Amino acid sequence: MTYRAPVEEIAFTLKNVAGLDAAMHDGRLGHLSGDLVDAIIEEAGRFATDEVAPLAVNGDRQGAVYKDGAVKTPDGWRDLYARWREGGWNALSGPEEFGGQGLPTMLAVAATEMWNSASMAFGLGPMLTMGAVEAIEKHASDDLKQKFLEKLVSGEWMGTMNLTEPQAGSDLNALRSRAERAGDGTYRIFGQKIFITYGEHDFTENIAHLVLARLPDAPAGTRGISLFLVPKFLVNEDGSLGARNDAFCSSIEHKLGIHGSPTCTMIFGDGFVKDREPGAVGYLIGEENRGLACMFTMMNNARLMVGMQGVAVAEAAFQKAISYANERRQGKAAGYKGEGMAPIAYHPDVQRNLLTMQVLTRVARSISYCCAHAADLSRAGGDDAGHWQERVNLLTPVAKAFSTDVGVDVASIGVQIHGGMGFIEETGAAAFYRDARIAPIYEGTNGIQAIDLVNRKLPQSGGAHVRGYIDELRVEVSRLRDSNRDGFGASADFIENALNDLQEATDFLLAAQKDGRMDDALSGATPYLRLFALAAGGAYLARAALANDNVARTALCRFFAENLIGETGALKSRVLLGSASLQAAASTLISA
Amino acid sequence: MTYRAPVEEIAFTLKNVAGLDAAMHDGRLGHLSGDLVDAIIEEAGRFATDEVAPLAVNGDRQGAVYKDGAVKTPDGWRDLYARWREGGWNALSGPEEFGGQGLPTMLAVAATEMWNSASMAFGLGPMLTMGAVEAIEKHASDDLKQKFLEKLVSGEWMGTMNLTEPQAGSDLNALRSRAERAGDGTYRIFGQKIFITYGEHDFTENIAHLVLARLPDAPAGTRGISLFLVPKFLVNEDGSLGARNDAFCSSIEHKLGIHGSPTCTMIFGDGFVKDREPGAVGYLIGEENRGLACMFTMMNNARLMVGMQGVAVAEAAFQKAISYANERRQGKAAGYKGEGMAPIAYHPDVQRNLLTMQVLTRVARSISYCCAHAADLSRAGGDDAGHWQERVNLLTPVAKAFSTDVGVDVASIGVQIHGGMGFIEETGAAAFYRDARIAPIYEGTNGIQAIDLVNRKLPQSGGAHVRGYIDELRVEVSRLRDSNRDGFGASADFIENALNDLQEATDFLLAAQKDGRMDDALSGATPYLRLFALAAGGAYLARAALANDNVARTALCRFFAENLIGETGALKSRVLLGSASLQAAASTLISA
Repeated sequence: MTYRAPVEEIAFTLKNVAGLDAAMHDGRLGHLSGDLVDAIIEEAGRFATDEVAPLAVNGDRQGAVYKDGAVKTPDGWRDLYARWREGGWNALSGPEEFGGQGLPTMLAVAATEMWNSASMAFGLGPMLTMGAVEAIEKHASDDLKQKFLEKLVSGEWMGTMNLTEPQAGSDLNALRSRAERAGDGTYRIFGQKIFITYGEHDFTENIAHLVLARLPDAPAGTRGISLFLVPKFLVNEDGSLGARNDAFCSSIEHKLGIHGSPTCTMIFGDGFVKDREPGAVGYLIGEENRGLACMFTMMNNARLMVGMQGVAVAEAAFQKAISYANERRQGKAAGYKGEGMAPIAYHPDVQRNLLTMQVLTRVARSISYCCAHAADLSRAGGDDAGHWQERVNLLTPVAKAFSTDVGVDVASIGVQIHGGMGFIEETGAAAFYRDARIAPIYEGTNGIQAIDLVNRKLPQSGGAHVRGYIDELRVEVSRLRDSNRDGFGASADFIENALNDLQEATDFLLAAQKDGRMDDALSGATPYLRLFALAAGGAYLARAALANDNVARTALCRFFAENLIGETGALKSRVLLGSASLQAAASTLISA
Repeated sequence: MTYRAPVEEIAFTLKNVAGLDAAMHDGRLGHLSGDLVDAIIEEAGRFATDEVAPLAVNGDRQGAVYKDGAVKTPDGWRDLYARWREGGWNALSGPEEFGGQGLPTMLAVAATEMWNSASMAFGLGPMLTMGAVEAIEKHASDDLKQKFLEKLVSGEWMGTMNLTEPQAGSDLNALRSRAERAGDGTYRIFGQKIFITYGEHDFTENIAHLVLARLPDAPAGTRGISLFLVPKFLVNEDGSLGARNDAFCSSIEHKLGIHGSPTCTMIFGDGFVKDREPGAVGYLIGEENRGLACMFTMMNNARLMVGMQGVAVAEAAFQKAISYANERRQGKAAGYKGEGMAPIAYHPDVQRNLLTMQVLTRVARSISYCCAHAADLSRAGGDDAGHWQERVNLLTPVAKAFSTDVGVDVASIGVQIHGGMGFIEETGAAAFYRDARIAPIYEGTNGIQAIDLVNRKLPQSGGAHVRGYIDELRVEVSRLRDSNRDGFGASADFIENALNDLQEATDFLLAAQKDGRMDDALSGATPYLRLFALAAGGAYLARAALANDNVARTALCRFFAENLIGETGALKSRVLLGSASLQAAASTLISA
């Protein structure tokens, strides 16, 4: 089978778990109504299911192809992109002033999930454009906005993000690309960038590259980095395309997955355009030497969207696995009363795998949608904007790292459920396993997300914000106990234990930072992030189950509580006690 | 970097953890000496490092190629195989009567690990020959032995195992391939087999296919399956090759990994050979309808060897990752006093990943080597053969499933440590992630291993064998406490807790079986197997550290105890409590 967008589950989670219903009820999201939400999700789901998903397999097989500076995307993808943007999907959450629909991030993440479930390689491109729109809208001059924003919002042009260089990945201090002032207010950009997603393609006539580079007199380190808009084609005053800019793709990567998505090496200002002075024409975004601040404003959103890729690939892998498990027959099973061999979905060990896939996907979705809800409320203009901004800050690294880890783990279980067929590329399960593997790496590795959570997010408001968040989660435990619903089993006890583990680990890490025990904080960061997500996930699954009398949601909450959440005990122990042994063993890892 | 065989670590683990030194000291392994062991491991390591590893990358890129019934292996592999078998490596553990060296399984697993670290796709082929030798030696007629064994032991010919059919994977009841009596004592075989590893290739002139099929008057189910030897070319009385048999490869699979290894669909008796009556000529191995029993005798060994593939790919992935982590520089690290950016091996989060890779690899290796040690003692002709046979039976599913899960997890962490480079195929980290994924599936999925452990292995001797094994592991805790070595930290407490968890979970499952609560046993099997491996792993790491005063081994034992073994608490809880919630949620997984 191919992917079918789970529109009911998505709408339910947005409304009942992430807080969309309450926010609409409180008038925090303008005129948005439940019916409109349903209609948008339904229509996006239809497009993802009927238009995007059928082109995913060939996209993986053909991949993007490089020749003489140009990139050809897989057969049919150019038309698919055209239909997609003509359907208004690129403009979904774009600013209304420039033709966007200005809809909440909650709807953007839901739609992003569906495009990426259908094809992660296809869904990835528009995420970069979304980032470019955000940076330009917030930081660029009116002139640049007028020239670029409408076309980027509509998707007529696409955007890219050019950060990484061979020696500068996680550490942008090492950036070497340089910019020179041209004397007319514009700049000339020189340098090489690698791993540039959709850096060159045939979807659109023009591409707006956002490029980090250093001015000659810039301070060393990250305080000397500026952000420039470098279009593939210069844009005339009337909006028409002018000369080809000196910004070229020199090769694309041969990757483990997301084959349809071109990953480009970009060369700026190498004199490919012969009849002009060398240097790619660039326009400053924001102030000189303040480029990194511009990047940071869009980073939360980009990280959340990569988290959605984790949710997306997990959902798609789960759908394929449960479909196969109901078709494939092997052996006998106690619960199967039919003729012949039982569908493998009747075997307890396969059921354990399927339920694990399903519930981890739902936990990751819940955390990510809650993060999007906080982003919407942070921009809703209330007195509580600061509170919600802290919530976005807190949940973003969790949404990114946990969801993308879930993507890998769930895709791997999906291969396993298919048995030998899972290892055969034609089956499609292996493609999820390949695609999923990039998401824990790009947009800040998951290790960096964990360090960000512990070192920058926990200390917000002196620790009061995260403590308040845990208290909110505890409300679900009280509601579980009050519900007296038999089907929950020991869910309340297990989830409460997990929240106690989270509380204790949080207190420990806040104290470690206060006391300057940075090794404790750095060593425990990754186990802590997973502990955070599992504990929050238990509370969110309870919230979902309590929203109505649904037997399946109740059973799933119980399965998670009684089978998976118990991992928090060992994770807490690692946070509290693991650092010393890690430090003791670490010296053996260093080459002489 | 490419793989370098860890010959010292392998020899150390064999001698000091798995019991090779004690077995030699007690004269249980004939004239084998420590020096001979070292020399063999050294020489195998040299061949794996210098000859096999350099051809792995191209093997992955080119893959095996099918054309008109023939399979071409990657460039250089045919010669590599010739050098490998001329070196005597295929004959290492083969029976001396037929030209083998008759060396212990402990040396076979060590060598198997090294070939498979260097190239899993290359190392896989000889494992099938090893299985064919075992089946023929134990069950075939003298005539068949004379015709085939010497050439299979030397590696002049290779063997295959033909079990799987499209409808019959884990469940061999559904087997449909048929055999007819030819009247002259031989049989004619008809049917299609899939996923046949090295079913066709250019390494050797002849191939001995071992094929499961049903006779016309056979009982239904697995009691009506017979095992046949079906050679690619018939063999004349003088040993020369005769006519081409009607056994052909019709296609090979396009797989996620192990690209150099051809995975064939085999067609037997479809009339491809035109000048003869249809049917592939086959020779019965063992008795009619007793084919499955013949398969079972070789299954323990084959499963242990697949477990070695898990160890092997984990070791190779770890080596690549630690090498990269010492070269790649990003950011600042507290412990780094040199110039410029720190090697990422100095960052605590990277160190956590590297230590996790290293220690999981060592745990998997220890369990697997201990299993091999038991296999050797079970054949050493003592009064305790039955005891050691139960030990092999007990440890085989753990060695297979845990080690191959470790292979996947460690390869995935390896990709992560490489950052964006990890996703680029040229780097090589992704190939381990692709290759590793088959090992939890073939030779009995890991779910089936777990069920085998719980349902067939725990009840051995009424549970007395597994209880005795746990008692043996507890000795290491006492030795830890007696050692008073500071560097162990709280290792003794953590490992003892894990063994208590194992004891409790074991008692629960034995009681569940006695009481006929099969759902409890089936639901808890996979968590139990992991719990078993982690608890045993802690004891083996302690044993390794206590064997001498090595600071690094002591620190690694402590890292495992204080960071990783704690997972057993949650695993025990799943075994004891997880079944009810799994059953409650499972009904939602069944399609109407």
